[in-house]
Amino acid sequence: MAFIDINADAGESFGNWQLANEAELFPYLSSVNLACGFHAGDPINIFKSVALASDLNLAIGAHPSFNDLVGFGRRLMAVSSAEIYADVIYQLAALAGFLKLKNIKTHHVKPHGALYQAMLVDEKLAIAVAQAIYDFDKDLPLVTLAASGGEQMLRIAENIGLRVIAEAFPDREYLANGLLAPRTMAGAVLNEPSKIAKRAVLMAEGKAFTSLDGGEIILKADTLCIHGDNSNSATTAKAIKLALNNAGIEIKAF
Amino acid sequence: MAFIDINADAGESFGNWQLANEAELFPYLSSVNLACGFHAGDPINIFKSVALASDLNLAIGAHPSFNDLVGFGRRLMAVSSAEIYADVIYQLAALAGFLKLKNIKTHHVKPHGALYQAMLVDEKLAIAVAQAIYDFDKDLPLVTLAASGGEQMLRIAENIGLRVIAEAFPDREYLANGLLAPRTMAGAVLNEPSKIAKRAVLMAEGKAFTSLDGGEIILKADTLCIHGDNSNSATTAKAIKLALNNAGIEIKAF
Amino acid sequence: MAFIDINADAGESFGNWQLANEAELFPYLSSVNLACGFHAGDPINIFKSVALASDLNLAIGAHPSFNDLVGFGRRLMAVSSAEIYADVIYQLAALAGFLKLKNIKTHHVKPHGALYQAMLVDEKLAIAVAQAIYDFDKDLPLVTLAASGGEQMLRIAENIGLRVIAEAFPDREYLANGLLAPRTMAGAVLNEPSKIAKRAVLMAEGKAFTSLDGGEIILKADTLCIHGDNSNSATTAKAIKLALNNAGIEIKAF
Amino acid sequence: MAFIDINADAGESFGNWQLANEAELFPYLSSVNLACGFHAGDPINIFKSVALASDLNLAIGAHPSFNDLVGFGRRLMAVSSAEIYADVIYQLAALAGFLKLKNIKTHHVKPHGALYQAMLVDEKLAIAVAQAIYDFDKDLPLVTLAASGGEQMLRIAENIGLRVIAEAFPDREYLANGLLAPRTMAGAVLNEPSKIAKRAVLMAEGKAFTSLDGGEIILKADTLCIHGDNSNSATTAKAIKLALNNAGIEIKAF
Repeated sequence: MAFIDINADAGESFGNWQLANEAELFPYLSSVNLACGFHAGDPINIFKSVALASDLNLAIGAHPSFNDLVGFGRRLMAVSSAEIYADVIYQLAALAGFLKLKNIKTHHVKPHGALYQAMLVDEKLAIAVAQAIYDFDKDLPLVTLAASGGEQMLRIAENIGLRVIAEAFPDREYLANGLLAPRTMAGAVLNEPSKIAKRAVLMAEGKAFTSLDGGEIILKADTLCIHGDNSNSATTAKAIKLALNNAGIEIKAF
Repeated sequence: MAFIDINADAGESFGNWQLANEAELFPYLSSVNLACGFHAGDPINIFKSVALASDLNLAIGAHPSFNDLVGFGRRLMAVSSAEIYADVIYQLAALAGFLKLKNIKTHHVKPHGALYQAMLVDEKLAIAVAQAIYDFDKDLPLVTLAASGGEQMLRIAENIGLRVIAEAFPDREYLANGLLAPRTMAGAVLNEPSKIAKRAVLMAEGKAFTSLDGGEIILKADTLCIHGDNSNSATTAKAIKLALNNAGIEIKAF
Repeated sequence: MAFIDINADAGESFGNWQLANEAELFPYLSSVNLACGFHAGDPINIFKSVALASDLNLAIGAHPSFNDLVGFGRRLMAVSSAEIYADVIYQLAALAGFLKLKNIKTHHVKPHGALYQAMLVDEKLAIAVAQAIYDFDKDLPLVTLAASGGEQMLRIAENIGLRVIAEAFPDREYLANGLLAPRTMAGAVLNEPSKIAKRAVLMAEGKAFTSLDGGEIILKADTLCIHGDNSNSATTAKAIKLALNNAGIEIKAF
Repeated sequence: MAFIDINADAGESFGNWQLANEAELFPYLSSVNLACGFHAGDPINIFKSVALASDLNLAIGAHPSFNDLVGFGRRLMAVSSAEIYADVIYQLAALAGFLKLKNIKTHHVKPHGALYQAMLVDEKLAIAVAQAIYDFDKDLPLVTLAASGGEQMLRIAENIGLRVIAEAFPDREYLANGLLAPRTMAGAVLNEPSKIAKRAVLMAEGKAFTSLDGGEIILKADTLCIHGDNSNSATTAKAIKLALNNAGIEIKAF
């Protein structure tokens, strides 16, 4: 039976500030990427998210970031290789501490926000992060972009010996050349749950869909990302789950 | 042959701010307690201290703290049990990530500053921290005060199943009742390396020494703490090592 | 015509984390206490709240706190007088910078959370904070508890020359002895907007109301605090405004 | 009589971490640029530096930065105009609070580290910062680079109506084209106090000196910057003061 992973970024509350309704969202997922304290996530909130994800048998990955709490890890920072290497080790290890309490291991690593984006284009940065992941645990897969622009990251990971998991975004439009359509383009973000669900099925089946600029595109994705921080996240997630089930596709971690 | 452990708090630089000359101090120690990022220690500086301590074959312990960078963990904070439990797990795990890179395991845990002090008198806090250490790794010994005032902490650790390591301070005077003489008392802190070294030998031999208020006191200590953050730390450490060697006492981690 | 001030704590978003719907709540208030960055409030969110409050002609006060972002300023911290004095100056001044852009001056100071509470019982702390406010601007009133337990703070402010504004909580029950009923007591917090509104009118009129333990209590309050961070804050605020208007009481800053 | 300003970055301690011996250095200066809490400087340490500078009648400027404590403001960050505008207002205002306690006003603004550098090349960033300074106090001069590369910043400040103060570095070599020689070039940094002092005199007199690549260069500087954070800062500062005095040049704030 065909299957696909559905992931969401989570664990992104901080102290008194709560983000996302995880109890509502998590039942529709097969994996989560949990913040590690650098862009979001304090110890007590991380632990809560770990406990919930563990109770639901979700695969738990780390979601490390640049060290920028007020910017939520969304601002590019000119860090040195040595800095980001140590920052990633610190974050992977801190999260793993909570997993250890539940007798589970980190399942994968998906860099967050500006770090995820910068690794696609900054070779030195990509090498430093990939090496940190490999040195922490050589069996940890790296989740990165299943689209044009992801080639260099793929090559770097391969050279280091790191397995790569390709991620697609069913609520984002793509261009015919395979790139994500920039958010600034009209229509670049899908909001209608039924449309997103339909797109998710095509992505899971590896079938062609129409790009925003009118061409056709096929994405080979191992995991589909759902954005968990808006009010209708759970509705969208539910629609995706239903559509995948109807298409005979199981939702299961890679 | 008799032996004693000599420890120092370290890894307490932060970014551009350097504290202590570790290259000068570490050769005289058998163990270090490394900051984990909450009162001091950013990832890159922690990693440097781990690498140096590992090169010198020192036993490396974690030095977790209240989350108070600007107060250097020296200010009591009214944290809940759930908060400090999660904070300690996060810190122990983060440090362990760097040790993993060197294929070594955390050797012990010594809480820092206000947390160390508060655990002696606040039963709820002591239980939460001790339980966190036990849950992270039940074989991790807890370093705590070898003096009057340490009894409750000892009992709590015993109940949980945690091994306790008794720590004495050769540069601090004690009172006849076994308490540390408060820093506010005249003469409470020794500065003369030769006096500190002499006291260290008596402590290592378990022999009586004169208390600040004129009585006699015997401390059963497993480890002696050297303060690493003042200008003559290395001089004092060297004097202690020489005096212990002359007395036939080996410096070796517990 | 009789009048009373209605205040709410605000400006408590941080980066990506939003707290309270200020656009909905502010129209029912006459004053706000804005976070200054130590428990909440980053520069850009503070500025947004200042702009909104200024547009609505609300009186804008500072809401300084212990330096504890992850604890949202709700945890008592053992700070020195010199530390909290400097911390308060820093926060008052930082907020005043955004007011200056709007050509307005800070209207009052209401300490936040654990600092507000601690000032009622810790004389040294209360003196340090009151002195900081006075030194920053001797005409800035201090908002503090209109209830038993506020007497010492009142005396300290008087000695320093600081004007005090008495605050009552229409959504909290009181005890016959004039103390706030602890949140742990059953029924200590009112949730029903109509009940809270009725209580607000009695408080504004200086009339007796029934205490949680069955006695009668009269509170002389200059300002009533509305909690802005729950989902029905605006509903409650609207109910209070309507009830006060019906009673012929104007809502106006002190 | 001819005169020149001698400035140093200061107030860069943080909590327990002390940087620079300000008591030793300040007597040789006419102005200081004080950290405002974003790359260094907590309230109590800022206040100490303000008090010392005020006692010595130094002109006190603000030294705002990107919000990056662990990176000491030395890492470029992709901030939006709105973010950096608010960040600069917050920092200028916070520092001004301590000056107000001494009845003095902020004398100038010198952006720190990566922000200083980025403003030379990033027009949008430069406009946002310059506008923030102007809006906070239109009479506050901006200190920026007296060299090739400073032209755009100069034009932006002029358009906004901000006065610019040109800064030169007597311990840094320049290139014939007027650019600072990159630190990575051999010999780019002068260490010998006598050489630095000689260079300072030529700069103060507006006379030509030899560039690192063998040409001649004349810099029109209003202020000379001394690096205060290394062990021989005071020695260098003393040598500069002596040399300037011998050349009949007074050290005086612009």
